[in-house]
Amino acid sequence: MAERIAVGVVGGTGYTGVELIRLLTQHPRVHLSVITSRAEAGRPVAELFPNLRGHLDLCFSAPDSEALSRCDLVFFATPSGVAMEQVPALLDAGVRVIDLAADFRLRDATLWAQWYGRAHACSDLLEEAVYGLPEMNRSAIREARLVANPGCYPTATQLALLPLLEAGVIDREGIIADCKSGVSGAGRKASVATLLCEASENLKAYAVPGHRHLPEIRQGLEWVAGGAVGLTFVPHLTPMIRGIHATVYARLWDRERDLQALFEDRYRNEPFVDVMPLGSHPQTRSTRGANWCRLAVHRPQGEDVVVVLSVIDNLVKGAAGQAIQNMNIMWGWDERCGLEQPPLLP
Amino acid sequence: MAERIAVGVVGGTGYTGVELIRLLTQHPRVHLSVITSRAEAGRPVAELFPNLRGHLDLCFSAPDSEALSRCDLVFFATPSGVAMEQVPALLDAGVRVIDLAADFRLRDATLWAQWYGRAHACSDLLEEAVYGLPEMNRSAIREARLVANPGCYPTATQLALLPLLEAGVIDREGIIADCKSGVSGAGRKASVATLLCEASENLKAYAVPGHRHLPEIRQGLEWVAGGAVGLTFVPHLTPMIRGIHATVYARLWDRERDLQALFEDRYRNEPFVDVMPLGSHPQTRSTRGANWCRLAVHRPQGEDVVVVLSVIDNLVKGAAGQAIQNMNIMWGWDERCGLEQPPLLP
Amino acid sequence: MAERIAVGVVGGTGYTGVELIRLLTQHPRVHLSVITSRAEAGRPVAELFPNLRGHLDLCFSAPDSEALSRCDLVFFATPSGVAMEQVPALLDAGVRVIDLAADFRLRDATLWAQWYGRAHACSDLLEEAVYGLPEMNRSAIREARLVANPGCYPTATQLALLPLLEAGVIDREGIIADCKSGVSGAGRKASVATLLCEASENLKAYAVPGHRHLPEIRQGLEWVAGGAVGLTFVPHLTPMIRGIHATVYARLWDRERDLQALFEDRYRNEPFVDVMPLGSHPQTRSTRGANWCRLAVHRPQGEDVVVVLSVIDNLVKGAAGQAIQNMNIMWGWDERCGLEQPPLLP
Amino acid sequence: MAERIAVGVVGGTGYTGVELIRLLTQHPRVHLSVITSRAEAGRPVAELFPNLRGHLDLCFSAPDSEALSRCDLVFFATPSGVAMEQVPALLDAGVRVIDLAADFRLRDATLWAQWYGRAHACSDLLEEAVYGLPEMNRSAIREARLVANPGCYPTATQLALLPLLEAGVIDREGIIADCKSGVSGAGRKASVATLLCEASENLKAYAVPGHRHLPEIRQGLEWVAGGAVGLTFVPHLTPMIRGIHATVYARLWDRERDLQALFEDRYRNEPFVDVMPLGSHPQTRSTRGANWCRLAVHRPQGEDVVVVLSVIDNLVKGAAGQAIQNMNIMWGWDERCGLEQPPLLP
Repeated sequence: MAERIAVGVVGGTGYTGVELIRLLTQHPRVHLSVITSRAEAGRPVAELFPNLRGHLDLCFSAPDSEALSRCDLVFFATPSGVAMEQVPALLDAGVRVIDLAADFRLRDATLWAQWYGRAHACSDLLEEAVYGLPEMNRSAIREARLVANPGCYPTATQLALLPLLEAGVIDREGIIADCKSGVSGAGRKASVATLLCEASENLKAYAVPGHRHLPEIRQGLEWVAGGAVGLTFVPHLTPMIRGIHATVYARLWDRERDLQALFEDRYRNEPFVDVMPLGSHPQTRSTRGANWCRLAVHRPQGEDVVVVLSVIDNLVKGAAGQAIQNMNIMWGWDERCGLEQPPLLP
Repeated sequence: MAERIAVGVVGGTGYTGVELIRLLTQHPRVHLSVITSRAEAGRPVAELFPNLRGHLDLCFSAPDSEALSRCDLVFFATPSGVAMEQVPALLDAGVRVIDLAADFRLRDATLWAQWYGRAHACSDLLEEAVYGLPEMNRSAIREARLVANPGCYPTATQLALLPLLEAGVIDREGIIADCKSGVSGAGRKASVATLLCEASENLKAYAVPGHRHLPEIRQGLEWVAGGAVGLTFVPHLTPMIRGIHATVYARLWDRERDLQALFEDRYRNEPFVDVMPLGSHPQTRSTRGANWCRLAVHRPQGEDVVVVLSVIDNLVKGAAGQAIQNMNIMWGWDERCGLEQPPLLP
Repeated sequence: MAERIAVGVVGGTGYTGVELIRLLTQHPRVHLSVITSRAEAGRPVAELFPNLRGHLDLCFSAPDSEALSRCDLVFFATPSGVAMEQVPALLDAGVRVIDLAADFRLRDATLWAQWYGRAHACSDLLEEAVYGLPEMNRSAIREARLVANPGCYPTATQLALLPLLEAGVIDREGIIADCKSGVSGAGRKASVATLLCEASENLKAYAVPGHRHLPEIRQGLEWVAGGAVGLTFVPHLTPMIRGIHATVYARLWDRERDLQALFEDRYRNEPFVDVMPLGSHPQTRSTRGANWCRLAVHRPQGEDVVVVLSVIDNLVKGAAGQAIQNMNIMWGWDERCGLEQPPLLP
Repeated sequence: MAERIAVGVVGGTGYTGVELIRLLTQHPRVHLSVITSRAEAGRPVAELFPNLRGHLDLCFSAPDSEALSRCDLVFFATPSGVAMEQVPALLDAGVRVIDLAADFRLRDATLWAQWYGRAHACSDLLEEAVYGLPEMNRSAIREARLVANPGCYPTATQLALLPLLEAGVIDREGIIADCKSGVSGAGRKASVATLLCEASENLKAYAVPGHRHLPEIRQGLEWVAGGAVGLTFVPHLTPMIRGIHATVYARLWDRERDLQALFEDRYRNEPFVDVMPLGSHPQTRSTRGANWCRLAVHRPQGEDVVVVLSVIDNLVKGAAGQAIQNMNIMWGWDERCGLEQPPLLP
């Protein structure tokens, strides 16, 4: 049996947390050592999340647990603003960190402060932190001490646009990302807006004036494009638990290019990106519980607008699964390790 | 008590049909005389639709019912292609007709044949037929013998764009209509794709290469704009029963114009269009069971892209309710007559 | 036009409240004068509940509003324990009251204190209060100053059992009421357990050791049966917004009795109880938004167990609609007044 | 790497089929050799079920495939009535068979004919067939050539009652099994009744006069009880994809017995039965995608009615997972093999 690394999870009481724990309990190279929660310290994790009964005996620990610094790797599945307080000490103790929140996703501390409403607590780490989108950044992830795991909308949207921007075949102005998310993206906190009676049988856009994922997506696209990008991003809340569907629109510069081939070539060696056959319409459920991003490229009516359809499970490729993929890269394991289970359908 | 007109419904076994019947049973100026269905002839309507038990005693009649020609008004709630076979004879008999299907929505018979896959059976009537979007066409509807009730996507999308195109403040090229529909839009027919186990907990785009509502929307927009319009229309199937959310994107020409005022002025006297306060995000459920279209206008980040959010109940303002509104206009009644009930929430 | 009474609503921010307001805005004999809410005082009601935009201009008032005492009738749509503090003063001011909460449902103050965890604030009124189940208590309701509107589970369950207990054809021991409720029964308050991500795609029993509706149901059944009744009541939370399905089991004493005729005779003149044809399976959605209770009686395999299926909309016949029905009785109007709309399907 | 057996699946186009295939693709001792479907022969399985893209390269074969007889084990995931035509030849060829349909569940051919509406095609095999409920029948399963995999309702119901009947602590008359199922139990076939628009936001009982699982459950209970059992079984269709919740009621004979201890003792060594702590309310979602049955025992109000709450995923412990568990027993592997993944929550 292969050796295992010691892994800690900070903030394991949300949906990202329970999904991360579910995946970690099955990972052959991981020993799940400690899961912290201020509110639930001392309580069995499987009492809060009954799906874990019979799969995990651990109790939640207090968040200042000494045990974290003895881990090889710590995941933060906390609200934004928590990780930046604790990460420096862990790095000093030689622990590698993957932050599933937003603390290290933006490289510009001023921009971060503007969108997150407070000063960054360790802005010196922003430059070191590696943006953990493997399809864009694999080699840097391998060496990273600190990985900023991408947001869910940014994952689906950037994977839809990377091939087009890299190849320079679209207008960098006027890009539209119309995104639809399941309700689990809003987290597991008591709130009227996400009650079943408010959010089921309903659909609405939200945060149209500005959502925190906008600067994150723009930063990624501009890095790829090598220049300014004009992006309109509109997220929608849709009546399902899991799933993101990004519908991305851009104007084609190069009408002769075979877009299907462009996408297939770009993602040929990616273990978790599935370029579907020409004419396909990917379904969010085809990724449920798994780390896939499935893509389809269209040019409706043969006009010069390209439409890319991109689906992920927001809790997996959009959060916990991508974090596992990053861990696998950081330790040099097969990227699929612990992520081989097919999606659950129906 | 006011006098009542005799009304017939052809094809009352679908979702549009049952919604139309529900509204007609409560309309104070209507006597519901006959409802036809080939498959269900002789069966009580309330046996098929148990919500109508205690509200309607009628049985389905055979579709060739003599009784139709004795009506003042006949609604067609049939699949496309049925109305065009029967409408000429009814008009000859002096019956007015509102077709909730697509037979008379396109003015160009060639275009119709191309999108519906057969020749039109009475193309001479296409010119006479009035497109029944009251906010665009009220005076023509008043006099019409034959009204083509708009599709659900076209209603939500055109109401989002009318003020902008009429005022000439947007680029007529590069308009995007990203639309999300509940499953009832697919109708009440046995089909794997719309089973609960296929369509719940799932979201997908469909018909991206080309949907029949595309030429209908384009025809309406071009009529308003007075020239060619470049439109990309992508419909999505979302896991709810009722509701359409159209998210419409266009490039602003005139960055100085007060868009909120433009919309409020345009729709000030419309009984069923609700321009919501600046910064709003309309919810589909806020229209459930009622004839409202609720709109909000945004300019994210102050850039030159205008985003209009438009919600309707696809079975009401997108079908049966709009048909009732058209009837009210045709007979000179208050447009709200029979449509006063507030939406059902939660 | 008929004269209207002045009506107030205390606590209009929950689901029972918004449903009551929706129905009251359409009632031809009601002038909705005041709606109170401590938290929302001053805010337009239609801002909280966007379905009411265009249907109601009222703002919430502070709960101590003088205006309440000038009403003819005040509805309490508050959490349990609020009405009993305010009702005595209103009655003294000559206002009639319908309490949609539980404060006056139990006649025994000791039992009330035991189940609601505090002493009753005006136990002297418990005897005067009339239990507002019209099918059981119509004549007393007509004269009442104070009506205790029944709970949702008790309405569905008692209507299923009344004919059987009145006729004495079942064993009064060993009755089982297995009840399934939509999530709106849990109210509109921020809570993790009723988030879409917790309550959709899920089903569970709750409060099996004892639910507050147990003594209410037992009190009603014993009053009808004229003696002790042995009842096991198990409520379940099911993934839908509205609806209660009570499945009631009892042992038959009299195997010769025609149960279908018994039910049909008992409810022949009831405007809101629909005894469905032999062999039927009522669906909760067939009552959505309307005041119906639909019932079916079965004797599976011809054995001596009778199974009654009983469905209601928990917010209508189980709350707001029944309150309107009680108002109609109290003022001598047609019981259907303001409640004529068919259920919404699909 | 361990040796693998060759496995075939007949009828892999339904929900039981795709779940079985999902589990088999991950099983370390299985080589999935052939999947047959008359309708889909030649088509890639992953085209029909997009969750399998990237996990399975197989195409559907014609149902008379020679390849089946070269398998070590064949699963039938067909409608009832198919397996009995093909099983004799496969057994003759030395292939072991697990039938997930109902062909071999009843031991009495007359009873089978009565409930399934035709004569049994190989009634001589009914005696040899082993009823595949491991918790009841493990040693017989180990040796079986032909296993009749239990139905979903029977699994949840029998596991709720086994300890009580074996210990003789309940009245064998008057047992009530009120069961609630997700819609996937109805299968993946085009049908109006299970459309999202019919089955979501709705709940109904069905087949109250008699459901095919009634004789199956009764047969199992009588075998355990050693005598006649009086059972009323009422299934309900509930608006979710997966999950069964059985709520079982019985009258206690022995009021002194510690029921919690009885259940814990009975299931202590069962790998897939989870007796939850006293006072628990199991949730269906706590089993989603996994082979667990979770149970809780209650005696409401201390009376002499015992209430057992039992939840499973109908497609896993109620079908495909239990079939895998049976295979593991038949080949002497760890019963958990290939079934270790925790349930998916949320």
